[in-house]
Amino acid sequence: MKPERGPLRVALLGCGVVGSEVVRLLREQADDLAARVGTPLELAGVAVRRPERVRAGVDPALVTTDAQGLVTRDDVDIVVEVIGGIEPARTLMLEAMKTGKSVVTANKALLAEDGATLFAAAREYGADLYYEAAVAGAIPLLRPLRESLVGDHVHRVLGIVNGTTNYILDQMDSGGAGFNEALEEAQALGYAEADPTADVEGFDAAAKAAILAQLAFHTPVTAADVHREGITEVSAADVAGAKGMDCVVKLLAICERVPSEGGRNGRGVSVRVYPAMIPRTHPLASVREAYNAVFVEAESAGSLMFYGAGAGGAPTASAVLGDLVAVARNVVGGTPGPVEVTYAKLPVLPMGETVTRYYIHLDVTDEAGVLATVAEEFARHEVSIQAVRQVGLGEEAQLVVVTHRAPDAALSAVVEGLRGLDSVREVASVMRVEGEE
Amino acid sequence: MKPERGPLRVALLGCGVVGSEVVRLLREQADDLAARVGTPLELAGVAVRRPERVRAGVDPALVTTDAQGLVTRDDVDIVVEVIGGIEPARTLMLEAMKTGKSVVTANKALLAEDGATLFAAAREYGADLYYEAAVAGAIPLLRPLRESLVGDHVHRVLGIVNGTTNYILDQMDSGGAGFNEALEEAQALGYAEADPTADVEGFDAAAKAAILAQLAFHTPVTAADVHREGITEVSAADVAGAKGMDCVVKLLAICERVPSEGGRNGRGVSVRVYPAMIPRTHPLASVREAYNAVFVEAESAGSLMFYGAGAGGAPTASAVLGDLVAVARNVVGGTPGPVEVTYAKLPVLPMGETVTRYYIHLDVTDEAGVLATVAEEFARHEVSIQAVRQVGLGEEAQLVVVTHRAPDAALSAVVEGLRGLDSVREVASVMRVEGEE
Ligand SMILES: NC(=O)c1ccc[n+]([C@@H]2O[C@H](COP(=O)([O-])OP(=O)(O)OC[C@H]3O[C@@H](n4cnc5c(N)ncnc54)[C@H](OP(=O)(O)O)[C@@H]3O)[C@@H](O)[C@H]2O)c1
Ligand SMILES: NC(=O)c1ccc[n+]([C@@H]2O[C@H](COP(=O)([O-])OP(=O)(O)OC[C@H]3O[C@@H](n4cnc5c(N)ncnc54)[C@H](OP(=O)(O)O)[C@@H]3O)[C@@H](O)[C@H]2O)c1
Repeated sequence: MKPERGPLRVALLGCGVVGSEVVRLLREQADDLAARVGTPLELAGVAVRRPERVRAGVDPALVTTDAQGLVTRDDVDIVVEVIGGIEPARTLMLEAMKTGKSVVTANKALLAEDGATLFAAAREYGADLYYEAAVAGAIPLLRPLRESLVGDHVHRVLGIVNGTTNYILDQMDSGGAGFNEALEEAQALGYAEADPTADVEGFDAAAKAAILAQLAFHTPVTAADVHREGITEVSAADVAGAKGMDCVVKLLAICERVPSEGGRNGRGVSVRVYPAMIPRTHPLASVREAYNAVFVEAESAGSLMFYGAGAGGAPTASAVLGDLVAVARNVVGGTPGPVEVTYAKLPVLPMGETVTRYYIHLDVTDEAGVLATVAEEFARHEVSIQAVRQVGLGEEAQLVVVTHRAPDAALSAVVEGLRGLDSVREVASVMRVEGEE
Repeated sequence: MKPERGPLRVALLGCGVVGSEVVRLLREQADDLAARVGTPLELAGVAVRRPERVRAGVDPALVTTDAQGLVTRDDVDIVVEVIGGIEPARTLMLEAMKTGKSVVTANKALLAEDGATLFAAAREYGADLYYEAAVAGAIPLLRPLRESLVGDHVHRVLGIVNGTTNYILDQMDSGGAGFNEALEEAQALGYAEADPTADVEGFDAAAKAAILAQLAFHTPVTAADVHREGITEVSAADVAGAKGMDCVVKLLAICERVPSEGGRNGRGVSVRVYPAMIPRTHPLASVREAYNAVFVEAESAGSLMFYGAGAGGAPTASAVLGDLVAVARNVVGGTPGPVEVTYAKLPVLPMGETVTRYYIHLDVTDEAGVLATVAEEFARHEVSIQAVRQVGLGEEAQLVVVTHRAPDAALSAVVEGLRGLDSVREVASVMRVEGEE
């Protein structure tokens, strides 16, 4: 039907962990790719920092340090950006789109910080901008959210989107290790980097939460909008407490539509990343080691979960190739794919207004009336208690309290208040409880 | 960029469990849908059998019994088929495509029986034919397989694709119920139909297996090619035996690429449906009640799982709407989406050549030499034993044998042979073991 056209020419920016696997797949899957696109995909050039490095399977003649020149070349149809970071990635992608090229990227940091600029450019120049690999690596997640659930109404997205922290928390849960010990093991096994800040402090998860919230709720969200708490403070006692509740501690990225009285869109969205307890019966609870999974609750589709490897060169490259084929088909067909829409423009609500539940573990003095004093503190902030359990006696006396749902501001005011009580010797553990209705 | 165009007109064939929810979503999601498509979607007509029935939210003026007239009307752009069955659905869809309309369907039976005819028509007339809802209801699965994994190489698909049988097996596992008791409970709760044949005999799962195999391996597969065993013979003893192995029994749809010495495509595909044991640590093991999940193993992406509601009016309609938007965007853009490709044309191998593992539970006489006689029978067919366990003594003496991987023909010859041994009083349970490497 369509006239035959020559091969589509792909410029690859970056040839590291992900880029080198993209090169491999372009070669190994060449026939399948050509069959799906309708014409072969051809590597036009590979931009790197250190051109002298030997790169398996890469024709040295294609390697260049002139990324800027490469993205503006006339014989390039599509640009794949796997350099990472804000600059020069942003400028290169903007240049590419300005000269009519479509872009595939895995760059979560950039999308979460300044996605709006990129989406605006895509719209202005009629270019595609695809980024499946930016969230949860190989797991096909953004495309289903964007395309399959387009006729549905997403209420909530709950995700384990960082493999490093899931590995650490899983070790703490199964082996009883403390955070530092589990982190060292993760580093030794290559699951955590030498500087683990981006992972353990939740920055990586927050970037992904912003991208997911934007897609799920058609509303602009940046990483800076995301309430973020990492896992460095999670103690063996927290994990043991979770076990006692038949729960497990996971670092969750949560994107939630906050309902309003009238109107289907709700009065805003809550986007947050923190360690929380979820029941062991929740599908996310069985996500072990460095795997990722994202649980989506939609009005008609109900509960969905997407599970798989969240990182790694080959899995991430698999997602890049999926996008590359979609973009290539659009180039061949002459129509760009769906552009990011943020027409809902819902406000991102502050954490204090987010409604959640707390688990609070207190070391208390063993006197008559302690429970009454503690309960009084909850009542003062209009937080109602779902269950309370007293453990031990004397010096060891402890109270475990689980609240009903309440605004986070009220819950944290309760914790402040408890800290000030004479009968409370220590607030040993505070953790949010998620994944229940 | 594109000139404004009028609303896209949708003809709905069938307005039952799924169709009535499609109508609801078209109304409730109208704004979101119009934003994504670029123009509103409008219901042009609704074909049913019993026009006199009152249908909530459906304008009676749109209802017709003349489905044939509706699909060929000039003012219809897209046809949604949710009647089900082979005819008149097939003729109606062919007519629609012949007159240039794209089609969205949830009809797994028809696709698995005669998908080739439909795909050929789609290709010939340049029409879209989308069918996400046909497999695993709301779970976005076909689109990820078709589009996201297009640059990858799928080795295996393992799915729980029938909610009724999963509900029954889950009851048998958690409550210790027998098959009949669990079936009755499923019927009482509406999880099983009065005539449960299509579900419990594996016909429904086999249709879905055919559709999945075709997509995963780019090769034509029909329901008749699928080796099919249902769950009616699964006994409480089988389920208990699985527990003893730290496994759970699931009805699995398995699509596997069978490797060959040379060549990446393999020497064929194996497509089968049967109850099998999988380890409790496998992500599919925790799929409870009537949920569905599909586990995909791909070369680069690694292990992926897609989980969600496999049926029900609203979930299925959610998937239909996702397809409808994709098709509508293609109509607006003037280019059809990817056409089903079956360029690989791999043979479907007979079950006897499929390599799998058996769990065999034997009641044996308690004599010296029983184990040797039994082991001899395995050796005769070149099946090697991974583990054997003797339980009980005297009248109660039992052997539990788990094999290594071997061709199914050899494994079933072993079982035949065992039945003929004097020292084997009964072959109490035989079950395949899947989900392990
Ligand atoms: N790794 C994963 O598992 C994973 C998963 C999901 C998403 N991602 C994302 O994928 C992207 C790439 O990650 P990666 O792990 O592949 O990174 P990487 O291994 O560090 O590779 C980066 C590549 O970019 C090149 N590069 C750096 N600065 C450059 C510049 N100014 N001009 C041209 N080339 C430059 C490097 O060149 P040299 O080779 O010469 O140093 C290297 O080839 C990031 O956005 C990351 O967030 C990665
Ligand atoms: N239900 C599910 O959970 C589910 C899940 C996945 C896929 N599906 C698939 O979705 C399709 C529809 O299923 P369903 O459960 O919605 O079926 P259903 O409730 O039985 O509805 C069938 C509809 O088709 C109409 N119809 C029957 N014969 C017709 C004819 N000759 N001409 C015009 N209309 C006719 C019926 O009209 P009347 O209303 O007048 O009887 C009814 O509205 C099937 O292919 C099924 O496999 C269903």
